[in-house]
Amino acid sequence: MSHELGALPSFEQIRDAAARIAPHARVTPVLRSDALDALSGAELHFKCENLQHGGAFKFRGACNAVWALGDAQAAHGVVTHSSGNHGNALAMAAATRGIAAHVVVPEGAVRAKIAAIERAGAILHRCAPTQAAREAMTAEVEKTTGAVLVHPYADTQVMAGQGTVVLELLQQVRGLDALITPVGGGGLASGAAIAAHAIQPALALFGAEPLGADDAAQSLAHGARVTSVVPDTLCDGLRALVGERNLDALRAHRVDVITVSDAETIAAMQLLWSELKQVVEVSSATVLAAILQQRERFAGRRVGVVLTGGNVDLQALPWY
Amino acid sequence: MSHELGALPSFEQIRDAAARIAPHARVTPVLRSDALDALSGAELHFKCENLQHGGAFKFRGACNAVWALGDAQAAHGVVTHSSGNHGNALAMAAATRGIAAHVVVPEGAVRAKIAAIERAGAILHRCAPTQAAREAMTAEVEKTTGAVLVHPYADTQVMAGQGTVVLELLQQVRGLDALITPVGGGGLASGAAIAAHAIQPALALFGAEPLGADDAAQSLAHGARVTSVVPDTLCDGLRALVGERNLDALRAHRVDVITVSDAETIAAMQLLWSELKQVVEVSSATVLAAILQQRERFAGRRVGVVLTGGNVDLQALPWY
Repeated sequence: MSHELGALPSFEQIRDAAARIAPHARVTPVLRSDALDALSGAELHFKCENLQHGGAFKFRGACNAVWALGDAQAAHGVVTHSSGNHGNALAMAAATRGIAAHVVVPEGAVRAKIAAIERAGAILHRCAPTQAAREAMTAEVEKTTGAVLVHPYADTQVMAGQGTVVLELLQQVRGLDALITPVGGGGLASGAAIAAHAIQPALALFGAEPLGADDAAQSLAHGARVTSVVPDTLCDGLRALVGERNLDALRAHRVDVITVSDAETIAAMQLLWSELKQVVEVSSATVLAAILQQRERFAGRRVGVVLTGGNVDLQALPWY
Repeated sequence: MSHELGALPSFEQIRDAAARIAPHARVTPVLRSDALDALSGAELHFKCENLQHGGAFKFRGACNAVWALGDAQAAHGVVTHSSGNHGNALAMAAATRGIAAHVVVPEGAVRAKIAAIERAGAILHRCAPTQAAREAMTAEVEKTTGAVLVHPYADTQVMAGQGTVVLELLQQVRGLDALITPVGGGGLASGAAIAAHAIQPALALFGAEPLGADDAAQSLAHGARVTSVVPDTLCDGLRALVGERNLDALRAHRVDVITVSDAETIAAMQLLWSELKQVVEVSSATVLAAILQQRERFAGRRVGVVLTGGNVDLQALPWY
């Protein structure tokens, strides 16, 4: 059984997603910090998806994908391969509909994250830690169980769900000049761009990408998708290569991708903890790192900043 | 120049305080956590004063005290002795009115906190690290500058300002069964009790106090103020002895004070960081520690939980 994969969502699909997930997802608050405004010279409005169910924006996309299925499709459950927030989000979303979630987890994945996925009620399928093994195991689960694949960022309904972050932010804060999100596989960045420009066509869009996984920045610069990047970054949520359609959206919406070093990101992460008082994971801090690196481009502007998640191991903080 | 000190505020004074500070203070969000609800068996509504200006509820009381002064009184500024959140809050509050703030700081106080007080624009006065030296230096500053003393918890307008936390919480969340705040000097706990019972006379009130500074619990048990406790706790915000009038309020409103060990508090602090995704200081975690220690008393209830502050040194976390 196959599942629509790849096409970019329309703004209507994002609005539909917002209505579909409303009974299940949290409306997350937008927070401010005097100190971070002073430091950046900008007016920063932080959209706190670390406060979403499961501690990350991923719940929105997974929840939309799960509830967009017809009853017959949904009956056999859903499957994905992920050792991180998407696997957990899909398990939680499936639970809201009472259907099975299969999560393919590579050996060597972070134990705490696997435990969280299991607690959320998913059926785990372990495989070797290679992309080929993950895909083979996923295909086998699809075939033997009839579960529907929900890809973490290339799935249309996932992208639409992620776009609701920005739909919601633009309802909460009026008159933003600019918006910045992290860029990994590009599910959030593409959904955000489509939602943002449908509502405010003049909004300046930025992405933040780790220097050690800068395939999106390279792809935009070279005019074609660069797949040769071997990720080397602490930002475990942003190691995926940007998807083909996700890249199309970044290009079409002129998203300016700023690359940041892990050192810049860790410094920004500490600022988000100490000044905004938010526990965010390292990937989430790339956006503030980008703003502080390119201060002159953001100063004086009213900027929407998406904080994507807050799932961290408190015993292994990167500044200790 | 002296300043009204000691009388408990009326509910009207708390309502006046809310109106007075509204242009300056943040309306802080109330956050929830699926995991903490599951762990406690209760429905926990966390009032996040770690997100207040200055990172603590103290701004409310200081702001109310500063703006309650007549112009002639205010002209010479305000003074307090504090090496912690109240000193910083008073400096920030004075800045909103454009008056001087004098803060008496004992030698040996945490450098980061002193730096914050200085950044907020206060005039620092250093003294020896004893209570007598602090009081003598404060009296001298009052005399030489004409500044008005704003006591951290025994000041009527400070208590009224702290009470606005609960006024606001009860407007944000309907149908609470119980409310819990930390107990230090008692400014928050007494203001909260007065506000809570004026609005919902049947609300069950709890306080959380470190076992190593359990003077309020001892005083309530013995029927008279116990002043022999020598504080020995990591909860630096809760080392003050409860004030005489503050204790009267706890007694009159039947506030049940639960004592918690520092180990319980540190475990609760980690849960607030990892599950609620909020950076809170150790004193703030006493409330969750109390709920988890006395699970059977809170299970099944809708509980308002005041998180008082989030000013921590990220380089010196108590679980590392």
